[in-house]
Amino acid sequence: MTKIIDPWGSELPEDYVKIIKDFGLETFDKELFPDPNRLMRRGVVFAGRDLKIISKAIKEKKPFYALSGLMPTNDQIHLGNKSVVENLKYFQEKGAKTYILVADLEAAAARGITVEEGRRRALNFHIPAYIALGLDPKKTVFYFQSQNMDVVRLGYEFAQKITLNEFKGIYGSADPGRIMSAVTQVGDILFPQLAQRMPGIIPVGIDQDPHMRLTRDVVARTKQQKFFAPSSLYHKYMPSLDGGLKMSKSKADHAISLPEDIASVKKKINRALTGGRDTVEEHRRLGAEVEKDMVFELLKQHLIEDDVELQKIYDDYKSGKMLSGELKQLACKKMETFMNDFNNKLEKARKDIDKINILKFV
Amino acid sequence: MTKIIDPWGSELPEDYVKIIKDFGLETFDKELFPDPNRLMRRGVVFAGRDLKIISKAIKEKKPFYALSGLMPTNDQIHLGNKSVVENLKYFQEKGAKTYILVADLEAAAARGITVEEGRRRALNFHIPAYIALGLDPKKTVFYFQSQNMDVVRLGYEFAQKITLNEFKGIYGSADPGRIMSAVTQVGDILFPQLAQRMPGIIPVGIDQDPHMRLTRDVVARTKQQKFFAPSSLYHKYMPSLDGGLKMSKSKADHAISLPEDIASVKKKINRALTGGRDTVEEHRRLGAEVEKDMVFELLKQHLIEDDVELQKIYDDYKSGKMLSGELKQLACKKMETFMNDFNNKLEKARKDIDKINILKFV
Repeated sequence: MTKIIDPWGSELPEDYVKIIKDFGLETFDKELFPDPNRLMRRGVVFAGRDLKIISKAIKEKKPFYALSGLMPTNDQIHLGNKSVVENLKYFQEKGAKTYILVADLEAAAARGITVEEGRRRALNFHIPAYIALGLDPKKTVFYFQSQNMDVVRLGYEFAQKITLNEFKGIYGSADPGRIMSAVTQVGDILFPQLAQRMPGIIPVGIDQDPHMRLTRDVVARTKQQKFFAPSSLYHKYMPSLDGGLKMSKSKADHAISLPEDIASVKKKINRALTGGRDTVEEHRRLGAEVEKDMVFELLKQHLIEDDVELQKIYDDYKSGKMLSGELKQLACKKMETFMNDFNNKLEKARKDIDKINILKFV
Repeated sequence: MTKIIDPWGSELPEDYVKIIKDFGLETFDKELFPDPNRLMRRGVVFAGRDLKIISKAIKEKKPFYALSGLMPTNDQIHLGNKSVVENLKYFQEKGAKTYILVADLEAAAARGITVEEGRRRALNFHIPAYIALGLDPKKTVFYFQSQNMDVVRLGYEFAQKITLNEFKGIYGSADPGRIMSAVTQVGDILFPQLAQRMPGIIPVGIDQDPHMRLTRDVVARTKQQKFFAPSSLYHKYMPSLDGGLKMSKSKADHAISLPEDIASVKKKINRALTGGRDTVEEHRRLGAEVEKDMVFELLKQHLIEDDVELQKIYDDYKSGKMLSGELKQLACKKMETFMNDFNNKLEKARKDIDKINILKFV
């Protein structure tokens, strides 16, 4: 098993140290941000780029923006999306102008979903889901790439500033759909600065870093237009419940989707890799190996807000007082509460879809 | 010198036979089209793809379209553009719905011209120039790529259907700007069929054939949408006045731009490669080598409409009755008339630019 779990985030696992070094990131310093959220406090947010400029904007109440996109490919999202939304929500509450783009052109270029189909899915599910996860619909600007000619125009203009080899260097490979998709992302990331040049923060999973690098490279070359290079914030993967690096659809038995039938989720949790010992006697004597435990990771990243509550669970489990089965039971209960709440909010957001703030272009 | 000139187009020069074979084209048959224009009658138009379906549409008065684009890069066009417009005009008069797109997104992606700058240039020069060359502004629909989300959307959807290797196979090379430019052309070529599926004819120079191949490949793969594969019509290059394959800006001393100062054009014509003999005596005795003569080619492709008039010049020159200096003098005179006429029409079209039919999108 790759060592990617760190129960409290007090020490950064080797793999992430390597990522920070290889990608040239800054290690995340929670002191930079007032009232850090759960993911920041617990080391799930572990790195960034140019975070000081965002910290400064928050403290001095200067304009800045936060942006993320959603890809309307199928009718489920995952826990990684949840982390992104929680970080966006943090910056939204700290004053960021908040943008969510629907990557319908990208879905067409890279996944073969027609623009019409993408639009339908976004309105029916993805946008309501992002609201259900905590975005304030009144304070969030949504737009569709396919309606935003400014983004498209920026993409075409930026394409001219990138060579194929550079593209391959950043992405590892290149095909026409991916290229169009990527330069359009650059347009998206910089779009809010067309109205006003200001710093922006893009919370992403580490696998999205190529887009950040491409955007920052392009910005460095567009001297005339003088954009702020976007800042970024990275969260760790939610590992697969069997201990793999990352939950993914290709291992659906060990991944949790939003929404998902709670019986199915509970079954997955009950089969998860834990840090429990082979026998109860041994567990009581040695305590759990918490750093190996996927159920604890789930509680830490997603299900328990209160640090004191989590600390108590950690202590009880680590000392052997709490058994692995008890931890699973707790996680199932918390997950059921979360999933019910998500479903209710999703339903409500769906009903209110006409009231959301979708950017209009004329 | 490459043998690319054929005084009457009665026999196709070797190079063009090879092009037809290599590219899998049809040899142009002027019998297919009623009242063939000058370029068709004289073998300047030499090949095509799927021409029978267009011939049929004309004869049966069925709907079809003709389309070409203009790239608003600098403030001059060339004789190749003139040939394209003349062929478009032919189809327009035969009932084609006629579209001219302004490739402002392509100019951004492939040439680094901002969309704003491209728009300015197109309105100030390129569109008026195309009208000056004979398009009926009342019957022609103009649009800007940057305002046509349907074209952009088609481009993104089609990008997904092409691999990088395929792209390299067709274009010889690939970079992000070129790729975006090319898939957008595919969107342009098929755009008129969104309103109504119908055959379309795209008159192009042979160097534009890769776009046709790409579009036809894409159409073959979009079974659901069932577009008509576009037909195309190819004209020969206007050779460089020194006998090179093709007039080009890189050899500006031997190329004629529209507009260009007439004194400069006359100087170029007077220095052109001719089929005249070394001495007058020899010329009278042997006659001119018309097939080598760039000035005759200029008259044939661009300056003399009447076949009888051209035939007489051919006969007189071939027999030695007409000298190369006399041919040049004639060409200079015809060119002056043409250029004055072009300039007057350009000025008029510029003044009427608000009246042209620019497609609006809401």
